[in-house]
Amino acid sequence: MKLIKNGIILTAETEFEGDILVDGEVIRAVGRGLDGLADDIIDASGKYIFPGGVDEHTHFGSFGGRLFETTEAAAVGGTTTVVDFAPQDKGDSLGAAIEKHAARAAGVSCVDFGFHSMVMDMQADTADQLKELPEHGVSCVKMFMAYKGTPFYMEDASILKVMNESRRHGITMMVHAENPDMISFYTERLKAEGRLEPISHAFSRPPVTEEEAVRHAIVMARVAEAPLFIVHVSTRGAMEAIRDAYAGGQSVYGETCTHYLVLDTSFLALPDFEGAKYVCAPPLRTREHQQALWEGIDKGWLNAVSSDHCALAGGFETKKEGLGDFTKIPNGIPGVQNRISVLWSQGVAKGRISKQRFVDLIATAPAKNSGLAKKGQIAPGFDADFVIFDPGYRGIMTQKDNLEGIGYGAFEGFEMIGRPEQVFLRGMLIAENGRFTGRKGCGRRIFAKPYAAAYDHYRSEPL
Amino acid sequence: MKLIKNGIILTAETEFEGDILVDGEVIRAVGRGLDGLADDIIDASGKYIFPGGVDEHTHFGSFGGRLFETTEAAAVGGTTTVVDFAPQDKGDSLGAAIEKHAARAAGVSCVDFGFHSMVMDMQADTADQLKELPEHGVSCVKMFMAYKGTPFYMEDASILKVMNESRRHGITMMVHAENPDMISFYTERLKAEGRLEPISHAFSRPPVTEEEAVRHAIVMARVAEAPLFIVHVSTRGAMEAIRDAYAGGQSVYGETCTHYLVLDTSFLALPDFEGAKYVCAPPLRTREHQQALWEGIDKGWLNAVSSDHCALAGGFETKKEGLGDFTKIPNGIPGVQNRISVLWSQGVAKGRISKQRFVDLIATAPAKNSGLAKKGQIAPGFDADFVIFDPGYRGIMTQKDNLEGIGYGAFEGFEMIGRPEQVFLRGMLIAENGRFTGRKGCGRRIFAKPYAAAYDHYRSEPL
Amino acid sequence: MKLIKNGIILTAETEFEGDILVDGEVIRAVGRGLDGLADDIIDASGKYIFPGGVDEHTHFGSFGGRLFETTEAAAVGGTTTVVDFAPQDKGDSLGAAIEKHAARAAGVSCVDFGFHSMVMDMQADTADQLKELPEHGVSCVKMFMAYKGTPFYMEDASILKVMNESRRHGITMMVHAENPDMISFYTERLKAEGRLEPISHAFSRPPVTEEEAVRHAIVMARVAEAPLFIVHVSTRGAMEAIRDAYAGGQSVYGETCTHYLVLDTSFLALPDFEGAKYVCAPPLRTREHQQALWEGIDKGWLNAVSSDHCALAGGFETKKEGLGDFTKIPNGIPGVQNRISVLWSQGVAKGRISKQRFVDLIATAPAKNSGLAKKGQIAPGFDADFVIFDPGYRGIMTQKDNLEGIGYGAFEGFEMIGRPEQVFLRGMLIAENGRFTGRKGCGRRIFAKPYAAAYDHYRSEPL
Amino acid sequence: MKLIKNGIILTAETEFEGDILVDGEVIRAVGRGLDGLADDIIDASGKYIFPGGVDEHTHFGSFGGRLFETTEAAAVGGTTTVVDFAPQDKGDSLGAAIEKHAARAAGVSCVDFGFHSMVMDMQADTADQLKELPEHGVSCVKMFMAYKGTPFYMEDASILKVMNESRRHGITMMVHAENPDMISFYTERLKAEGRLEPISHAFSRPPVTEEEAVRHAIVMARVAEAPLFIVHVSTRGAMEAIRDAYAGGQSVYGETCTHYLVLDTSFLALPDFEGAKYVCAPPLRTREHQQALWEGIDKGWLNAVSSDHCALAGGFETKKEGLGDFTKIPNGIPGVQNRISVLWSQGVAKGRISKQRFVDLIATAPAKNSGLAKKGQIAPGFDADFVIFDPGYRGIMTQKDNLEGIGYGAFEGFEMIGRPEQVFLRGMLIAENGRFTGRKGCGRRIFAKPYAAAYDHYRSEPL
Repeated sequence: MKLIKNGIILTAETEFEGDILVDGEVIRAVGRGLDGLADDIIDASGKYIFPGGVDEHTHFGSFGGRLFETTEAAAVGGTTTVVDFAPQDKGDSLGAAIEKHAARAAGVSCVDFGFHSMVMDMQADTADQLKELPEHGVSCVKMFMAYKGTPFYMEDASILKVMNESRRHGITMMVHAENPDMISFYTERLKAEGRLEPISHAFSRPPVTEEEAVRHAIVMARVAEAPLFIVHVSTRGAMEAIRDAYAGGQSVYGETCTHYLVLDTSFLALPDFEGAKYVCAPPLRTREHQQALWEGIDKGWLNAVSSDHCALAGGFETKKEGLGDFTKIPNGIPGVQNRISVLWSQGVAKGRISKQRFVDLIATAPAKNSGLAKKGQIAPGFDADFVIFDPGYRGIMTQKDNLEGIGYGAFEGFEMIGRPEQVFLRGMLIAENGRFTGRKGCGRRIFAKPYAAAYDHYRSEPL
Repeated sequence: MKLIKNGIILTAETEFEGDILVDGEVIRAVGRGLDGLADDIIDASGKYIFPGGVDEHTHFGSFGGRLFETTEAAAVGGTTTVVDFAPQDKGDSLGAAIEKHAARAAGVSCVDFGFHSMVMDMQADTADQLKELPEHGVSCVKMFMAYKGTPFYMEDASILKVMNESRRHGITMMVHAENPDMISFYTERLKAEGRLEPISHAFSRPPVTEEEAVRHAIVMARVAEAPLFIVHVSTRGAMEAIRDAYAGGQSVYGETCTHYLVLDTSFLALPDFEGAKYVCAPPLRTREHQQALWEGIDKGWLNAVSSDHCALAGGFETKKEGLGDFTKIPNGIPGVQNRISVLWSQGVAKGRISKQRFVDLIATAPAKNSGLAKKGQIAPGFDADFVIFDPGYRGIMTQKDNLEGIGYGAFEGFEMIGRPEQVFLRGMLIAENGRFTGRKGCGRRIFAKPYAAAYDHYRSEPL
Repeated sequence: MKLIKNGIILTAETEFEGDILVDGEVIRAVGRGLDGLADDIIDASGKYIFPGGVDEHTHFGSFGGRLFETTEAAAVGGTTTVVDFAPQDKGDSLGAAIEKHAARAAGVSCVDFGFHSMVMDMQADTADQLKELPEHGVSCVKMFMAYKGTPFYMEDASILKVMNESRRHGITMMVHAENPDMISFYTERLKAEGRLEPISHAFSRPPVTEEEAVRHAIVMARVAEAPLFIVHVSTRGAMEAIRDAYAGGQSVYGETCTHYLVLDTSFLALPDFEGAKYVCAPPLRTREHQQALWEGIDKGWLNAVSSDHCALAGGFETKKEGLGDFTKIPNGIPGVQNRISVLWSQGVAKGRISKQRFVDLIATAPAKNSGLAKKGQIAPGFDADFVIFDPGYRGIMTQKDNLEGIGYGAFEGFEMIGRPEQVFLRGMLIAENGRFTGRKGCGRRIFAKPYAAAYDHYRSEPL
Repeated sequence: MKLIKNGIILTAETEFEGDILVDGEVIRAVGRGLDGLADDIIDASGKYIFPGGVDEHTHFGSFGGRLFETTEAAAVGGTTTVVDFAPQDKGDSLGAAIEKHAARAAGVSCVDFGFHSMVMDMQADTADQLKELPEHGVSCVKMFMAYKGTPFYMEDASILKVMNESRRHGITMMVHAENPDMISFYTERLKAEGRLEPISHAFSRPPVTEEEAVRHAIVMARVAEAPLFIVHVSTRGAMEAIRDAYAGGQSVYGETCTHYLVLDTSFLALPDFEGAKYVCAPPLRTREHQQALWEGIDKGWLNAVSSDHCALAGGFETKKEGLGDFTKIPNGIPGVQNRISVLWSQGVAKGRISKQRFVDLIATAPAKNSGLAKKGQIAPGFDADFVIFDPGYRGIMTQKDNLEGIGYGAFEGFEMIGRPEQVFLRGMLIAENGRFTGRKGCGRRIFAKPYAAAYDHYRSEPL
């Protein structure tokens, strides 16, 4: 057995100096003076130890994103589990889509991986297919309120039907909430005015388009009597809508993403079409919204921070499809590698969130949200996924250290306060000081359980 | 000149004992001791005199309603002006639709009449057509958020486009606000459960379906930077949404209808398919909502009471199309005759609203809402439309006195406290004690002005 | 009889071209073509005519203010009625205090005058004394939540008792709402920091001190089941509290004052102790609050604009008692003369409020608030108080035209758009182009009726 | 070393099957397969193990309560730490009051004990005395907004001053929030009506009296820029005020008490003056409020459940001082013994809260609220305080098992689902199956740290 000794162990609830005793792939004990039981002792004096990160929202391979071989980037960044959105090809059932996508990860992924379902082809029996998700190890399904005119836009009627069914099988309903008609309204105006540069992407999707969609989704969830999870929340209004619905007794939750916390609209205005690198939906927002999101994750109105990692396979070249017309810029921003570093450096180190909130946001809550029973915590019986973190390290995030594989990162030049020194996945050391030290394909598929965290406060009575 | 003497004159602002001096079709003076100027003196001692009613929402001929010859019913009820919704046939422009409908009223209507436009066929240039409405004497245009699957349902994109244009021409945007997808969701459930009787009409359109649509419309109006008027508000939630948006600085207004104030869902549950007579959309509500609506009209959150009169030409037989399937029951409830009596008897006489609010709700505000510059007030220069009202009369509303022409009324058996004793239209006595005494076709077309009341507090800055 | 011909008559509800026929002290008719009935014809072509102003909140003689001989200033400004707060000497009953104060006005006042009661000496039977107010022609009573440590500060217990009794006699409860303990808290801090100049007066009474007191007063009114009127509202928060309580079903109303609409905190920072001239309570606020108050009067959340005229008898010398210690600066700002001009010039002429709102705010509503049945309207039977207003006049408000009698005015240098050309009090011409043309003492005492406007929507059920 | 084996360990965050290794008074490790390190093994198969309860709000000896020898009751009920309010005699400093009270507990208390300060004699330098609290091991100070006319009622000015100072020393400000003037208002009315029985105690303190005081306290905390903790929250309105202030960015927290969750006003109406046993302030509420409080503790709007234990030394006889006059009934309700059982039986067992919320509410959060660094958690380095809980036990709470020492309990006849089988205090077995097995005086004084949980989200910027 392995003993990680003398670190300061951080959990979502507390912190204490202590040791972690690892038995194979699993944490066997947490305490002190357990040396006698260990064969192998690693000294972590002066270091923090926190659970391996869980990134609950990634797009490896969907929407043009690079595939799972780039999960090395996750590993070196301290993320030991990704929960990836499985795209659905036309005609495939949700279950078939998951298995097809799982095949892409198997033997390739460098970190453990689970899946969320994503409805991209509404079929007569889609709602009914939800009942099969648990056997595929999937506890969440996402639908799109945006992108009208594409196959994955779904009308309210479809969303209501799926929501209504989700409750019966313990599936957590996720939505991408942006109002497509309002976006069209603004887009047409911008086009008429000849404003076609990347920054117009943000002008075409102002905060009201997200807030309105979130409020609407919340009412639909009330009608369909189902819990609701809003992905990638980017605005104060949306955050407040979630907070107020939750306060009002509804089971409504949301996450935000790293980039919404630290990148503002000025990045979209970078010259030489550089702004296009930052085009994602919802778009980057002004600082006022960033402040609201920090508040939201501090207080828990948003319970997780994901990367929404979507590293377009063709890199900047792909983005250039939208030269001269922002509506043609493929959406997607990378970020799986630096999620944890950004949140520590800009959050904990700046006094915006506590170390406990940090752990909850990057690991514990995302694992619970996704129904991953053995991930996200340092406690006996949980997978031995953890990060030995050196808080004293100082550096800069740069492209030369980036493993996301598309020639640029989203947080280039950002300060790095502290660093994952060693990253363990089920007891294996898979990364050390920014280098991947594991084996390609060492990641394992993780099966989620239904009735995940969004059901914790859910009461079956109609609201 | 004619002098109506010694009545108690009620206006939206005040009341005083006085005389009205009428010069031809117009009020020349209001005061006392004007006998010397009059040829003809009518004594109104002990009577109230208030402005002839303006019913801002009627369907003569649209949606299967009976035509303008039945406006006799309006006259005997104290309503001297109706503003009717002009249906649009496929291919007709909005202007053409109005003229087509105006031709149905000309020479037939027993009271003065104006029109609202109603988009039932969205064309490439519909928004652009708004600019022609002022020359047709129309200041309001209505669009439907409900009835998905029919030609007059409009997508948000269309509504936004029309709203956006409405502001430029001073047209008041009206919406019928019910969420069609939620209604489908409930309808399917009811059908699956075999609950097909008339009362299910209300269950398929619960309050949330109206409230959500109203809230959504309000956000669209904010996006499109236009004033908004919500027709036939039936729920507390919708009323509060309007109130709060207005309080928050937006120019959002609404009306309710007579039946929502005094008929509750129990009418829909009447046996022998009698409930079908009360099927309209939005549906009748529970008493809790009625109370909220009374509060709303007392405080002014809803600024007018219309009839939404729609007397299906075939009467009860037409309703029977929905025997065994509530979704097939044609919508529509009559009420133009008793609007004023119901509001006085159940409102003023019961102490729920003041006489000033009454005048405002039935005449002054609807005239302002509709842009009718010479209607709805007893003041020099206004049309000599007024009602001499005997507050001492006691009776019952019954079918034998009903002139709506479809074999049943909506308020059968309701107490009548007070009665329009004499009704004057532009100085002509057109009704007396419940009998029409005017000439068929004596009504005249009224041209509205743009920038009606919904623009009163509208500020051009983006909100 | 006198006929004022061809003016554009403005009321709170409407406007029309017409004539006013005056019979002695009273308006006999409003209309056109009434020449035959008149002995004396005044042409008002091209002029507006609106009701003589009613200033519902003045301090002639209380709190060190100059006495009623200075009501000339009201007259030339277009105000034909003042409702003055009657101070209460220790030991006097409320009724005695009113009669004592009435004696000061009789034979002196240049405009008509009524009174509000003001509790400055809580006695065992003060609440019981309310029942006598109607016979003294008083319909409102004010209590102070501020000024702890002075005799007129009242504890909540006293306020609740008086509120509770007010309802039984139709007396409208008014409060001066500022939280004294919070003010002390800020004052002590400012003193400790040696910040003793006039501007500190505003820092010692920040918006929260008013908002909190207003919210608290509203809850007390709910507990005591009585209507409530908040005087001199100066902040967005207080305005919103009133608006929301009213929206929530409570009978809560408020006024603001001219100076809060157009003078901001920068006036308090004027050098050479000039800032002291602008010390009043609540203090002047920042522009953000001004904007909120304009919104509030436009929408009706605040229903009247008074002057809170308090022209300290000793003028600037009196203010100097507070040299070196802002807490010793006597409160009080003059303004009875320019209230109407400021509201027209900065409100109507700038497009912030309509002419109808203007009339309501300066005359109709204050008369209703105060229970003055024959004031504030141009309608048959009302007192012939009106202003012939020349909208084309352009000038500047300066001290040389000021009749307030203390050596300085509050609106020095403000633009004057339009001017009261002729001011009529009960048919008498009392002012012309800025000169008082009446007779000293021509003002008459006006007796108010209980159950004034604050009771209009009041329902007797406990809320 | 001692090993508690095979239990299901419950924490506020998670649960897992595992063992607890105890080294003397402290938890050394948590894990599995640690047998080799232990001298003494206790099998807890099939049992839950949770942290020893922390009751953050007790009155041993204050307000007439029995002294610390009755802490046996706490022990058998699973509470291993009480945080008691130290009463302040006139003239004593806060520090002196604490030491005087600590002397009462030393060598007597059967469980560990800490203290909160309680201002009952406002002195010139009371605010200044806060700086000494940390050295007395006290992190919270309470002030009373109620009880005007007694020495411990404090004016707003005093509260603001203490709040303002609290922030500088990391002291958590607690308030007893009830509006005394409103209570007087209702009390006088009840007395006038001769309604003097115990139930009138509740009528004299209706929900509005608590809600208003809570809202007011929140504004004061905003003014004074300090975190705030509201004790014994009993109403929906107060809970919502706390929730909304927290949501709005303020550091405002609250607890409720066992009795508010399960005892309603009907207990106050028990015949034969039995109702007096349930007289406490705030009073018991209706079921609607209970439901809101369950919601509040489930969602975390209220973060702890205390007993507010106050077992009047004279028992029912003492209550009889109020025979014939409810205002004379001494306040106080016992409950330290059954707090945990009630919350499990009515909360966890009924599905209203999760086991994790349960642990947080009874132990983890109260320890954090009170600044007790080594209490309330099962984790390495924490005191070995825990409860082995048999979930299969079924019984009834009865007086014969009650150790509170006053002849009656508050939860007589309540169902007991599960029971603390063994209770460990710092590794010592102090209770077993309802019997106290420890040594009198085995409790030790616990020193709290300042900047407790109420400061977790506190930001120093003015709000």
